[in-house]
Formats: sequence, structure tokens, C-alpha cells
Amino acid sequence: MSLPMRGFAVEEFRSRTARAQVLMQDAQLSALLLTTEPEVRYYTGYLTRFWESPTRPWYLVIPPAGDPIAVVPSIGAHLMGQTWVQDIRTWQAPDYQDDGVGLLLDALKEVTPSDGQIGVADQMESHLRMPLADFRTLEDGLGARRIVSDAQITQRLRLVKSDAEVSKIKTATTIANRAFDRVPEIALVGKPLATIFRDFQRLCLEEGADWVPYLAGGAAQGGYGDVISPATDSPLKHGDVLMLDTGLVWDGYFCDFDRNYSLGEPSREVANAHATLIEATQAAFDEARPGTLISDLFHKMNTLVNPGENGSDAGRLGHGLGMQLTEWPSIIPQDQTVLEAGMVLTLEPGIAMPDGKIMVHEEDILITPEGAEFLSSPQPSDIRILS
Amino acid sequence: MSLPMRGFAVEEFRSRTARAQVLMQDAQLSALLLTTEPEVRYYTGYLTRFWESPTRPWYLVIPPAGDPIAVVPSIGAHLMGQTWVQDIRTWQAPDYQDDGVGLLLDALKEVTPSDGQIGVADQMESHLRMPLADFRTLEDGLGARRIVSDAQITQRLRLVKSDAEVSKIKTATTIANRAFDRVPEIALVGKPLATIFRDFQRLCLEEGADWVPYLAGGAAQGGYGDVISPATDSPLKHGDVLMLDTGLVWDGYFCDFDRNYSLGEPSREVANAHATLIEATQAAFDEARPGTLISDLFHKMNTLVNPGENGSDAGRLGHGLGMQLTEWPSIIPQDQTVLEAGMVLTLEPGIAMPDGKIMVHEEDILITPEGAEFLSSPQPSDIRILS
Repeated sequence: MSLPMRGFAVEEFRSRTARAQVLMQDAQLSALLLTTEPEVRYYTGYLTRFWESPTRPWYLVIPPAGDPIAVVPSIGAHLMGQTWVQDIRTWQAPDYQDDGVGLLLDALKEVTPSDGQIGVADQMESHLRMPLADFRTLEDGLGARRIVSDAQITQRLRLVKSDAEVSKIKTATTIANRAFDRVPEIALVGKPLATIFRDFQRLCLEEGADWVPYLAGGAAQGGYGDVISPATDSPLKHGDVLMLDTGLVWDGYFCDFDRNYSLGEPSREVANAHATLIEATQAAFDEARPGTLISDLFHKMNTLVNPGENGSDAGRLGHGLGMQLTEWPSIIPQDQTVLEAGMVLTLEPGIAMPDGKIMVHEEDILITPEGAEFLSSPQPSDIRILS
Repeated sequence: MSLPMRGFAVEEFRSRTARAQVLMQDAQLSALLLTTEPEVRYYTGYLTRFWESPTRPWYLVIPPAGDPIAVVPSIGAHLMGQTWVQDIRTWQAPDYQDDGVGLLLDALKEVTPSDGQIGVADQMESHLRMPLADFRTLEDGLGARRIVSDAQITQRLRLVKSDAEVSKIKTATTIANRAFDRVPEIALVGKPLATIFRDFQRLCLEEGADWVPYLAGGAAQGGYGDVISPATDSPLKHGDVLMLDTGLVWDGYFCDFDRNYSLGEPSREVANAHATLIEATQAAFDEARPGTLISDLFHKMNTLVNPGENGSDAGRLGHGLGMQLTEWPSIIPQDQTVLEAGMVLTLEPGIAMPDGKIMVHEEDILITPEGAEFLSSPQPSDIRILS
């Protein structure tokens, strides 16, 4: 596999920033304040696993014009200095007296008028990654009601991927395709599920994943209890349906899809359920093109997997994908997002099985000008059989 | 290696909850609201990698007496049902109209008097994992000033680990010790650093890690630029100092330590720096026992590695460790935490090298009634040499 270039041309970050600034003007915002990993990375390219540590806050300010300002702990100065960001303001964190809030307040006051509104992500799928007490200090320091909703500007921009972003997601899905093809090497009757999970992550790394932030799944007779569990030490048994669902990363971009395997010949129920899941995935895929509504994709799948019901406990039948394992939007009947070329989605129908069990299938797709393209390798109706 | 039992006895969760309720009474709180992965897991045992998805909020309420109440998306009901929590209230998330806030509001109103205060984590190292708009809806629904600081109750409880928690951290450190011992297999001159990072994660899995949430490091002549960078594709060169710093997980508990390697004979500067880092680690270890202040550990190390300076860009010389890669407290001069048996810390001195480079060493220790115990295998003064 020939790999795309790591990182992005500076032009891509300039363009993201400029587009945000246009939307800021529309929303009458004089700055954006970003606090989470994907938000900061989207505008800067700042990629590190150090966010795993909850200790330090990291701030990025998008001014009404000009380049972003990073307000970050000094431990991050060297790495942030390798991005396109020039204005990097640091403090020696953790500081029990003022952990960067004073510095952030100064930066916000500097770039905004005294009555200018500052947008932060406040809607679904968002959170503020900073201590609440510091946020209240910031609000007090700025004056009444100056921090408002960001009008989902960053979420809206991230919805449509650039070619460079798509090539990274494709690389991740290709790596996972190859790892799934090697599951027969590791999924043997009698082997504890925890060992299979460990081995599967090893396969993902061997095939080229930078890291493997997500693996869930299940294995039981005739389906599994849920799709979010870590592995137990229970051994794989003849007749089990094994499901592995991975979100691996290449250069900061995720894939997210699963595969089902039958240990030995599947029961009629399992075979039929798998075929229905594939049929539902294909029905949504066939409908997916610029102009289609997300809710249309939901109904195409739901009619087949939950006839007469309005969705299931999973709450949705797929979602956006990119810098995070799951991104906006959700494939639910209420979502009226209009598909555009460059959107990347997962189609993830689930079906109820006897005894309260379920089966779930998932593929990753790209919306193209002409329709849609599978990024993961679409699966045949017949469930894969492991002997 | 014989592995400890996975999970915890129910008695441990009952005891954590009861201790929180005593502290709540002291702080005049009639409930605690928890929103983040480690907080929810601490009181419930709810362990899943599904938090990687930012879509859905998860709430736990600790009432003034009695067992916790989980207010969670229906996709999590099956797994939460396997914990000791009995009162599980669900909604079909994501719900664009009301994503669980109404249900949470009802639960809080039910268990607290109408003027009762509800604590949320609001200090350093914390954040609220819920949309800000939903938090404001919650505040409005409860009435003025009812959501206040949690008085760091959960942070204080997590500071001292139970024997069962320590055994999980020990398992993680033992796995990482063995992976580091195998680095000579994978760190070869000419090999890209990205491949070495990938291979090292594979070694961690082969040695028994459940997953590997953190790996950072560097490789360059005479030191490295920082300790938080992901790998580049630059090939390892003769004369490089290679540092790998991993936080791997076993049953939800982390280790966090690093190792330095010299590719060929080290320069005198590198050899001396490594010896000084080991000396500093040992000096802090010798001082560590119940009654010692965290600031004392800082000074023991800082005198050796930053003579005349008040710390470095890293901002601290170690930290707490457990359910997260880094936990409270930070080893800085301002921290007056008194050590107690059961605390787990990392000692992490760093030293400046020529040309703006650094070297950092890290070990994990447990405070015991008699002093301290190394959980990671303490390293000799001489840097490990790879040929």
C-alpha cells in the first residue's frame, strides 16, 4: 500500500481558518475559543496522544481575522512550534494559582472588542475541556454574556472532508480491511475473547495502524448482548457469533466498522440476520448521494431491520466519521442534514435476535459527486465462517 | 505471571460510595453528579472503550444515602446492567430534542431537597463531559446556584488506592517492564521511528496489555525535543537517544513510565545526564513515605536536575497514577499533599541537554506503610545500550 503524505499543506489550515472566520462574521462572533483535541487539531494540525493526560488545559483562539493564537502549557511549545501557528503563548502548567486562564483572558481581550461575543461549542457531541471553575473565572473576567454558542461552526466545517482528509480515512479503512481478513489466524474455538481482542489489535498495528483507540465486540451463541463491551476471558465456542468493531487511527484519522464471524455453520436465524443487515447497508448505500437526507438513509435501513419500530436501543443506524471515531451527524429519523460530496459516514444497521441479543453490521462510505463509494470492503450476504 | 481477578468485589463500590456520602455531608452536598469516564467507573465499575465516541453523555448521580443512579443512553443499559448499579434510567440517545437532560433533572430533583446543593468536579484536571447548553438547561431547571463545587470528593478518594487497585496497576507495570526488556528486538538503526512505535505497542499487547492508550517518545542525537510527540518516519540513527514512554492498561488501570536507550555508546553528556536522572529518581524514592510532602519529592529531584531553577517547561516532576495516565497530585513545589500509604505516583525528572534538547526518566512507585516500593523495575545509572 502506498501511503499518503502525513500532515497537511499549510494552505489547508489557512483555508479552514478563513472559512471559520466567514461563518463567525455571519454569526456575529468576534472570536472562537477551542478547548478539545479535535477542535484544536482541526485548525492547527497539533497531533499528540498527550491529551490522554487530563492535567493540562489547551486553548486555541480564532480571531476575527488573521491566524490562530495558541495558549498552551510550556510542555507543548516545542510540538506546537512545528505547526503553522506562530503566536504561541505558554505558561508552566500545572499552575495551582492560575492555570492559563489569565493568559487566555488577555488573548481574548486583545483580539475582540469589549462587547464582542466569543463562541464556544455548546451543542450535542461537544464539551468544554477546561475546569468549570476556570470557565466561570473567564466569564467573570470578560463581562456579562460574552461567551455564547459557536453556532456549530467547527462541527459544520468538519462535516465535509477535504481530499487529503479522505485519503487518510481511506488509509485507515484499508488497514482495518486487511486486519479483518486475518481474523481466521486468531479466532479459534477455546481461545479467550480477551486474547482475541489483544491479537486483533496486534494485527491492526502489523497492518499499519498508528494506534488503536477503539475495539469492542462480543461473542455468544446466536448474537451478542451489546456492541460496546470490552472482552471477557470466556473462551470462544463452536456456534458463537463473533463480532469485532474497531476504530483504528492513521495520521489522526479513524475508520470505524465491524465484521461478524460464525464459528462453524451459522444457524438459520444468524444467516438470515446477517443477510438482512447487508441488504439494509446496501439499500442505504444505493440511496446515498448529494441531496439525499440523512433521515432517508435511516428509513432505508430501518424498514428492513426494525420493521414497524422507530429505531432500536442503539439509538441510531450510523454516523459521521473522521478525526473522531464518531462525528456529526447521527443517522436518525430527526436528522435533516443534506448529504454533500466529501461527507464520510458509517452505515450501521442493527437487528434484534432471540433472547434479547442483537447483531450489528457497519461499513464506512464516502459521498461523491455521483453517489457513494465504499471505503471499507463491502461484505457479502453470507456471514464469514471460521472453522 | 499470575493475573489478579478482573473487576472488583461489590463491597469495594459500596465502600467508595459510602465514603463519598460521608464527605458529601461534610461539604453540605445533597448529591454528586459525575459525567466523565473515570468518575463514573470509580463508583460503578462500568468499563468500556465506548467513551471514545463523543456523541452520548453518561450521567451518574450519588444520592445523600443509598446506591448510585445511572442515567445513561439505552445502548449502555446491557453493560451497565452487569455492574452493581440497580437503578438504571435510559433514553434512546442521541435525541436531538432532549438528550437525557430531562431524565437527569428528574433524578436530581427526586433525591435532593429543593434547596439542596449538587456537587460537580470543577477544579484542576476536571471537566464537565456534557454539552454546555445542556448544563445551562440543567442549572435553569434546578434553580439558582444549586450546582456547586464537589469539594474534590472523588479526586480525594481516588488519591489512595485499595489493594485491589494496586494489584491492577502492578499488573500493568509488570507488562510494560517486559515490553521494555524486548526493545532490543525492535529498535534497529535505519528503522523508521513510526515503525518502532507500532512494534512497541505490539510488544505491549503480546505481553498482556488490554490496550495501549498512550505512547510518546523521541529519538535524536544527544536527547530529544520533547516528550509528547508522536513518531515521525525518520529512521533511527547511530548515536541517537531513543525514549519510549507508555501508558498501557490492564483492567482499566494504567502504568506510566519511560525508558531511554542509546544507539551505540553514549556520549559523555548523555551518560552523565542519565546517571543524574537515576540519582534524582532514587533521591525522591528514598524520601517517599507516609508523612512526606509532595513538595519534598520535588525538591529532592529538582536540586539534582535543575539546580538553581524552579522546575522546567514540563511543569512538574511526576504525578499520581491509577485509572488515568496522570492523576492528582502534581509533583511541584506548591503541592503540599501529605503522602499516605496506598498512593501511587510517578517520579519523572527531566534534564536539559545541549541545543535545547532534554532527557526524561520515569518510574512508578507505591507508598507503603514503611516507605515506598518500585512498581516499575528501577533502572541502573548506565543508560541501556542498543547495538
